[in-house]
Parts: sequence; C-alpha cells; structure tokens
Amino acid sequence: MNVERIRKDFPILQNRWMAYLDNAATSQKPRLVIDAINHFYQYQNFNVHRSVYTPAQQTTDAYENVRQKVADFIHADRAQDIIFTRGTTESLNMVASDFAMQHVHHGDEIVVSITEHHSNLLPWMRVAKANGAKLKYIPILDDGCLDLDAAKKLITSKTKIVALTAVSNVLGTINPIEIIGKLAHQNGAMYVVDAAQAAPSIPLDVQKFHPDFMAFSGHKMLGPTGIGVLYGTQHALKQMQLPELGGEMIEDVSTTDFSTKPIPWCFEAGTPNIAGVIGLGAAIDYLNQIGMDQIEKYCRNLAQYLADQLRKDKHVIVYGPKRRQSGIVSFNIRGLHAHDAATFLDLQHIYVRAGHHCAEPLVHCLGTEATLRASLYFYNNRNECDRLISSVKKMEMFFCHGH
Amino acid sequence: MNVERIRKDFPILQNRWMAYLDNAATSQKPRLVIDAINHFYQYQNFNVHRSVYTPAQQTTDAYENVRQKVADFIHADRAQDIIFTRGTTESLNMVASDFAMQHVHHGDEIVVSITEHHSNLLPWMRVAKANGAKLKYIPILDDGCLDLDAAKKLITSKTKIVALTAVSNVLGTINPIEIIGKLAHQNGAMYVVDAAQAAPSIPLDVQKFHPDFMAFSGHKMLGPTGIGVLYGTQHALKQMQLPELGGEMIEDVSTTDFSTKPIPWCFEAGTPNIAGVIGLGAAIDYLNQIGMDQIEKYCRNLAQYLADQLRKDKHVIVYGPKRRQSGIVSFNIRGLHAHDAATFLDLQHIYVRAGHHCAEPLVHCLGTEATLRASLYFYNNRNECDRLISSVKKMEMFFCHGH
Repeated sequence: MNVERIRKDFPILQNRWMAYLDNAATSQKPRLVIDAINHFYQYQNFNVHRSVYTPAQQTTDAYENVRQKVADFIHADRAQDIIFTRGTTESLNMVASDFAMQHVHHGDEIVVSITEHHSNLLPWMRVAKANGAKLKYIPILDDGCLDLDAAKKLITSKTKIVALTAVSNVLGTINPIEIIGKLAHQNGAMYVVDAAQAAPSIPLDVQKFHPDFMAFSGHKMLGPTGIGVLYGTQHALKQMQLPELGGEMIEDVSTTDFSTKPIPWCFEAGTPNIAGVIGLGAAIDYLNQIGMDQIEKYCRNLAQYLADQLRKDKHVIVYGPKRRQSGIVSFNIRGLHAHDAATFLDLQHIYVRAGHHCAEPLVHCLGTEATLRASLYFYNNRNECDRLISSVKKMEMFFCHGH
Repeated sequence: MNVERIRKDFPILQNRWMAYLDNAATSQKPRLVIDAINHFYQYQNFNVHRSVYTPAQQTTDAYENVRQKVADFIHADRAQDIIFTRGTTESLNMVASDFAMQHVHHGDEIVVSITEHHSNLLPWMRVAKANGAKLKYIPILDDGCLDLDAAKKLITSKTKIVALTAVSNVLGTINPIEIIGKLAHQNGAMYVVDAAQAAPSIPLDVQKFHPDFMAFSGHKMLGPTGIGVLYGTQHALKQMQLPELGGEMIEDVSTTDFSTKPIPWCFEAGTPNIAGVIGLGAAIDYLNQIGMDQIEKYCRNLAQYLADQLRKDKHVIVYGPKRRQSGIVSFNIRGLHAHDAATFLDLQHIYVRAGHHCAEPLVHCLGTEATLRASLYFYNNRNECDRLISSVKKMEMFFCHGH
C-alpha cells in the first residue's frame, strides 16, 4: 500500500496545510467516486424501475449492479438481502420501529453494549419504553474491551434483541461480533449489528457474524452522503413492516387496497438516492482495489504509532486498550477541555473531533464528559500524526505549564 | 427566457439525438448543480453540526443556508419550518406514520383526491385501515379537473386530514389548493399538500395555500436525487412523533433517557444528505434566476402546443382539460398499447413514460390501464415536441394502418 500515491486520488488531500483526522465523522472521497457521481448527473440521470426507454433501463441496471456489489462486499447470499437507505441511522431505526416494535413485548429484554453510538441505542430505548421491555447494557472492562463474561450472563432466554456495534466509534475497539452473535442465537434472540464504523475499517462477512440485520453508511467508507445499507436475512426482512409506502414499491393499487413488490424493492418507496447508490458502488470498487485487510492493518498500525507517542506524554490520557484494534485514538490532555484543545488544533489546520462522539454513555463510562478523537484512515500518514503530537505538546506548554 | 441558451447549461442536453420528455420522472441537472456537488466533495466535505473546526463549521453554515433558501422559495415564515428528508415519499410517510397515526381515530375520515400519486395515497390507506378511519376520494370531472362541488360535500367535521396533490403528475392539472385548504381548515382538519409535481412547475407559496404540512423532492426541480423537504408549521411539527432517533438530534443521553434538540434538528437524526442539500440550494438558485412564473408560463404554452397538435390527430386520445395547466400531456394512440408506443419512441431517442405513472386509481378513472406521458420542462423546445408528434404519426402508419 503506497499511501503517498493513494493520497493523490483524493482532491481534498491536495491541501497540504490540512491534517484531516476526523474520518469517523465522515471519510473523504477519491476522484473515482466524485467522477462517478459527476458522470451520473451528466450522462446517466434517468429514474430507475419506471420507464421502458433504453437509458432508463441502463441506469436501473447500474443501480441494481451496485446492490450485488454491496452483497458481495459483505458476503451476503443474494442481492435481495440489501436494502438501500439514507444511512446507518435510518437502517437501525427501521429495524427498531418496523421490526422490534411489533415483536418485542412486555417483560422481554433488549441487550446493547455501553459502547453504542446513539443511533444504536435511542431506537432501542424507545422500543423498550413503548412496549414495557427492559434495556440492558453489556459493560466494558478497564481497557475498554467488551466484558464477555457479563455478556454471557446478560443474554438469556428473555432476550429478544441483541444490538451491538461491531467497531466502537470512540475507542476503535472491535467487539467480539461472532461470539455475541452465537450467544444471541443460542438464546433465540434476533441479532442486529451496527457496522457504521466497521464497514470502512474491517472486512465484513455476514457468513461469519451471522447478523439477522446489519446497518452501515456510505459516507464513512468513501461513498456519498445520504446513502446507506440495511442488510437483512430474508427470514428477518419478511417479518418487517414496510417502513414507507408509495411509488415503485407496489404491484397494484385500487382505491381500497394494494399489493407490493417482492423484497427488497418493497422497502424502497419513491425515487431512491440513485446518485448515492452509483457513488457507493464506486467507493466499494476503490476499497476492493486496495483490500479491506490492507486497510485494517494499515490503520491499526498508524493508530498504534499515534497512541504510543501520545502515551509517552504524561499529561495525556489515552483511552482504550494498549494494543490498538482500528484507526481511532481517543484521548485528553490533563487540565484542558477537549473543545479548547480542538479549537487550538483547528488553528493549525489539524481537524479532530471533540465531544462525546454521539456515544455519551460510553464517554461518561470513561470518566469524562468529552474526549479528543483522532480517527485515521488509510490515506493518513505519519507526518499528520506527528503534527498532531507536536501540537499537543505545544498546547501543554501554552495552556498548562507555560504560564 | 431564451431556451436555446438555457439548454447549454445542461450537459445531458448536449446529446442532440435525445428528446428527454420524462421530466415528471426526474428533471435533468444544470451545470451549476453538478458543479456544486462536485465542489462539495472536492473541498467542503466535512460533517455538519458536529465538529468545532473551521471547515466543518463552514459546511454547517452552507447546509443551514439552504434551509433558509428553501424557506424563502416557498415563502415559509422561518427556516425552522423546513425539514430535510429523502424525498416527497418519505415526507408524506412521516406525516402519515408520525402524525396521523397518532391523531386519526376510529370513525374519523381522511379525504384525498382521485388524482393522487401513490405516495400521497397508500400512506393514508394504511392509517385509515390501522385506525378504523374512512378514506374518501374527491372525484374529477370529465375534463380531469377536480370536482369542487363534490369536495365541498366530502370535507366535513368528521374529516381529520385532507391530503391533496397540488399538481397532478398524470394530467398536469393544478388542483384548487387554496380553496380546498380553506375547506379543510373550516372543518378543523389538517391540510397536507403533496407538492412533488408543483415544486418544479408553479410558484409555491405557503402563505397562500396554508398547508399544515407540504412535501416535495429535489430531483424533480433540478436538484440531486435522495433529497427532499417536509415543510410543517411549528404547530403541526410539535404534534409529530420523532420519526428517527440517533446522533446529532439529541441534547443529552443517559442509559435510561434522552432529551432532544429543537425543531427542525430533532427531525434529522444521523448524518444527513449534505451533498444533496448543497445541490438543492444550487437548484433553487437556478430556478430563481429564471423565475418560477416564467417557467410555469413557458411549460404550459409548450404543452398546449403539443396537446393541440396531438388532438388534431383523430387516432390520438389526449387526457385532461383542453386548456393545459402545466407541462404534462398524457395521451394514447388508439389500438396501440402505451408500452409498445414508448418502446417505438425509444428507438427514435424520444423518451416518454408509459404506464400508470404511480397513480393507478386516476389512470383507471380515465378508462385505461396505461397512458403515454410527455412531461415537458423549461429546457424542452418545439423541435422536441415536433419529433414526438411526427413519430406518433409514423407509429400509426406502421402499426395501425400500414398493413
């Protein structure tokens, strides 16, 4: 993997002043993706699944080809297991509102982990409250890794849903997705995997993880904004209520009734984000070209370098395990609020996120209100990490010990 | 309005072989819109509402500026009345599932018209069935115009929702939006306007129409796919359940509860379609530059020309009123199925839609299973209409009378 060559593919990275270390908020886009969107609007912009004329058919084919590409990317059995959504948040809300709301009852239990992003927490909180079910949290150990022993006790025959993030967007830890999935299924629970941070970071394989539902977003994995995926087994999808009704998801409509198309098309009412789907296809092509194994390894190593350097500094607290698992490093500088630090870094054109990263319970669990989060991707390099490290030292001088 | 100059702004129209007459399916995009999306991904691609660093703030500002632009476009009181969605279908389903499902009860009535697109019909059918309410249809007169006398009788104190399309996507008729709105409000009903076909066609003014909710899509009005709008009065929006929960729509989250941001941000969970919003802003700029009054007039006149020419042909049935109201002309050639005709036209690179246009009850009401629909926009010209007319004549020769 030649990072300096790869960086040339990303127009935004040609700004050498900038160190973009906020990839867990959104990833940058390679020219291949930008050009695919551009090309779509210039030459392919016809609506899908509607018209008999040739270019509309070609655009429909291009759209459906991406469905197969997404299925291949996660090793799904068939393209029909893939539903296009706006993003992870919509996908997870669909599962909560249109599956769980109907199937979780009073006294049932929903198990999540304390590492969840709000999008894989609040929808379950709502289902639990509405239906009188109990929401339980798998805790983490001191190093930020999931407490598997606790999980084994928490997941029981009362559990109807286990919803787990595959990769923490705060700590970068990879949760034991396979093991928890087995626990869920042994207890007859449905297994929902939030793969928003996993999709750009590790190879996804539903044949290994065995989720009933899995959700992820295009924009974190080089793709456009406004496009995401809900994977579901046919068995799971058949038990879902249709989230939206409208054009192109029906077979026949009278003034009193209607019949719907088969899965997955019945889940995609109205004109979809066609450009988004086309762009997502190009993003997957680019990721496949480099290889998710390579990407995983590179990001983990780069994060290890950054974390090791930061840990050498006694004024810095680095959260999560000593051995990095993916490209994310959350930390704080003692005596300095994360937001002030991020503002200082902004002046040096170093872009990291400060806050609770939409995972407030986890950040509280780490004993703080906010962290700085550097989230690296495969186009980041050591030079950018070094700039961050030296700016952290400058801040310490300036704010904590300089006066 | 200089159409030949305008056509130069649309890359796809540089293909002179093509007569794109399927604008009600989706509109083509001017370079201004394509460039805005391109520019976003090349230079502005940062997530919104999350990070303190300068470029992320700038992108957030750009995103929120479009909210104001949309508000101005429809003369809304404030930017906070605008919620970004995936499109009309999602907007209308939100109103049905997250407002009406809670507020419509057994014995209540929902009134729609027979001219509705499925997206403003099926969601109401679902609410009516689930809650034991009655769904009633305002019929049309022989010329395709809404039967106002019938409407006056149908809308009563039992009516809880009146949901009406502003412009028919099959006939191009402009429904009496103001009058029906008054009837709805006089009877204490909520008024929902489907403006999917209206937004690209006529000036929209919520101060005149007084909808409680109004929905439209970006892709029909020169904007990107995957972006749409739900307008709601603050009074109406406050009575809505939040459709999705997740990141960036909350203030605080604990393991047991959460508090949400104010309207409209609480309705936009997760990373939105940022590029879509930016592109929609550029589309509105372009439309404003030309002027919606100009666009309305031009399309109506061009459609009148096309309809008059087609009506001269005794083998052609043109649906809808003699005086065209917008850019849509639905018709059939006697003895020839609409799909076969569209396939023949495809060979001449003339792209029209054939079918029920996602408005099956209306098309049945016209006494047919399918129509051909030429939907014109302001970049179409007489030459394209003439090509269609002469191809229709060729078809008659070839299929009906030639043998």
